[in-house]
Amino acid sequence: MNTKATLLTIGDEILIGQIVDTNSAFIAKELNKIGIDVEEIISVKDEQQHIIEAFQRGINKSDIVIVTGGLGPTKDDKTKAALCQFLDCKLVREPKILENIVQLFASRGYGKELNSLNQDQALIPEKSTFIQNKFGTAPCLWTEIEDKIIINLPGVPFEMKGLIRDEIIPQLQNRYNSDLIIHRDILVSGIPESDLAILLEDWENKLPSFIHLAYLPNRTSIDLRFTATGKDEVILKETIQQEIEKFKNIAGQFLVSENSGSVQQVIGDILREKRLTISTAESCTGGMIASMLTSVSGSSAYYFGTIVSYDTSVKINVLNVDEKAIEEFTVVSEQVAEQMAKGVKNVLNTNIAISTTGVAGPNRGEDKNDVGTVWISVTNGNTISNKRYFYPFLDREDFIKIVSTNALNDAVKFIQENY
Amino acid sequence: MNTKATLLTIGDEILIGQIVDTNSAFIAKELNKIGIDVEEIISVKDEQQHIIEAFQRGINKSDIVIVTGGLGPTKDDKTKAALCQFLDCKLVREPKILENIVQLFASRGYGKELNSLNQDQALIPEKSTFIQNKFGTAPCLWTEIEDKIIINLPGVPFEMKGLIRDEIIPQLQNRYNSDLIIHRDILVSGIPESDLAILLEDWENKLPSFIHLAYLPNRTSIDLRFTATGKDEVILKETIQQEIEKFKNIAGQFLVSENSGSVQQVIGDILREKRLTISTAESCTGGMIASMLTSVSGSSAYYFGTIVSYDTSVKINVLNVDEKAIEEFTVVSEQVAEQMAKGVKNVLNTNIAISTTGVAGPNRGEDKNDVGTVWISVTNGNTISNKRYFYPFLDREDFIKIVSTNALNDAVKFIQENY
Repeated sequence: MNTKATLLTIGDEILIGQIVDTNSAFIAKELNKIGIDVEEIISVKDEQQHIIEAFQRGINKSDIVIVTGGLGPTKDDKTKAALCQFLDCKLVREPKILENIVQLFASRGYGKELNSLNQDQALIPEKSTFIQNKFGTAPCLWTEIEDKIIINLPGVPFEMKGLIRDEIIPQLQNRYNSDLIIHRDILVSGIPESDLAILLEDWENKLPSFIHLAYLPNRTSIDLRFTATGKDEVILKETIQQEIEKFKNIAGQFLVSENSGSVQQVIGDILREKRLTISTAESCTGGMIASMLTSVSGSSAYYFGTIVSYDTSVKINVLNVDEKAIEEFTVVSEQVAEQMAKGVKNVLNTNIAISTTGVAGPNRGEDKNDVGTVWISVTNGNTISNKRYFYPFLDREDFIKIVSTNALNDAVKFIQENY
Repeated sequence: MNTKATLLTIGDEILIGQIVDTNSAFIAKELNKIGIDVEEIISVKDEQQHIIEAFQRGINKSDIVIVTGGLGPTKDDKTKAALCQFLDCKLVREPKILENIVQLFASRGYGKELNSLNQDQALIPEKSTFIQNKFGTAPCLWTEIEDKIIINLPGVPFEMKGLIRDEIIPQLQNRYNSDLIIHRDILVSGIPESDLAILLEDWENKLPSFIHLAYLPNRTSIDLRFTATGKDEVILKETIQQEIEKFKNIAGQFLVSENSGSVQQVIGDILREKRLTISTAESCTGGMIASMLTSVSGSSAYYFGTIVSYDTSVKINVLNVDEKAIEEFTVVSEQVAEQMAKGVKNVLNTNIAISTTGVAGPNRGEDKNDVGTVWISVTNGNTISNKRYFYPFLDREDFIKIVSTNALNDAVKFIQENY
């Protein structure tokens, strides 16, 4: 039986949808690696009674409650008061926290007197201990309640991440000796999810009991996730590999990558293996493909750069797209996409180039192309692949994301077919 | 008393941190606009008992429970079974759902026989009604339990968004006549959060009872969020404006923008107002600044494009950076940043240009610059602003995000000082 955790995020801005809670995914992933199961993720408002009730719920359901947010110095931060009430104890002043704040301000060049709100950040519940936060002014609080733990962290992502990695994970790993949890995703394409499930049914039913399979469908592909739980990392990984071999005998023709995760990682592995370089010319995706590719550490080995030609003049002057082609076919056309890809390949001097041109909306482009239309080209100078997609129902953000993902998927296919 | 909602997200992939729950923020924002308060957001695993318990919790705490995920056709999707058990009823087949699936497959060019798992997507709990999903195969389920409602939506973001916008929001708006909730953020910089809170204390205490103020600190600035609740949109907005005028009398020198939200919106408003155009040359930010700028609809009016020079050859050949400057000062230097900004301004022919060059890590750059070092330049041809930042503690993702935000903040300041 694995150790269980509840994650609790506090802050009105989450409940009104102003910010997305990315902290929980980060913490869940780190806990998962050391075999701690996240049972539930809860977000509540900056209201004392809500917070107290969520503490109680977390303690009832799990061994560890990790709380982020609400530790700041201002009025709308209620977590510390809630924790005091929950623990039925008073606040005490910890001089070492003040010293940390003074140092931190000095290193930032403030050198100012601490005001009363800064002073109050050194107050912690009497029943809690603290872990110094070298990234910010709010300390991490650690509270033991019989055999359970409540850990309070600041909500600012980089402070929270530093504390989780440097302090919390090592301490929890030391304390619990839980089963390891290993995940591995493979990427499958060209078959609907339900057909795949039927094809795999017999094999899936015979999987060892410590291996669990999940289908994570994307728009144009499916991630199959193997999850293995146990004590011996080597055995877990080997057993997953054996099951992937069995999978290949049944449905190998649909396998795109044995190590999925994200298409930017998949294409990075392929480009590195085949010693190819790539560049991009982006119009409607506005730099998202570049952002995805450069999110992978080490991508400078194969990715040379992008030219985002948001203004038509850039297509003509920098990418050398023929002005007449734009007049005749409009900027959102097969001809212009093709010339953009060829242009950036020449200007940036890479083996392969990808281009996108389309109408992200919500307004129609200057040439009255329908919102949702997009052309994607991939070329290596000799061969060219041009594809048209049409996504009339997507909002701007999703359109850009899906087109960018498709462009990278098209490039993966192009490389597999031509190299 | 506003109508209350609980959002429930179902899926193992969230609890292991593989994906970030972005659905909840979208739904919360849409509900908020029509005056429905989100009380709590919960994420639970694909386990029937967990799901049932979360249904019960949502029903106890709120009027509406909106559930996403777990409606797919495969084994690991448990939501429908859980709903049946919770409602104590059986599944019935709805032929109209099948017709929708057949149409959808035809429009995607599948034209294939429906397999047994597709057929089962037409099964819904006897006590529920359904809303056709024109974006995918899983229908939306609508279940009334006395005066409460449970709404089940597919977890795929674009399907969920379409259903929320086209179907759910209009129906809920029609049914509840809740108070409107209006938010407005202003952007403040140059004063620590705690000093600002003390400066504003008297004014904050005298705010009308239907206006609430929240401090949302970022790394280099603070968003002040006004939230007004009531029946009359005009009065709410006017009262917020009056309070902002009072704020300006107290702390006007720290006000960066009266309409915050995001720096890409702020800079867009300023560029449009001053009729200026802008381009970017990105190295370590890898296209993120371009992505942020183009995420704003209508940005093509002022944003011409970016050149991401991930490979040094692109800096030299496309941006015309002097090779000797790179040799003498390294790619991460004031000199190179400045030449990149001047280069892209000339090549893309804009009024203003921004450049970034730095080491995102986790590995040191080729020139042994410390991880976390970055130079940002902003120029209009006559004046140039070069700034060095150092973020040694950030991971790659946060580094890129913070540097991109800083670059846009620097550009806002540059424009305010020079135009």
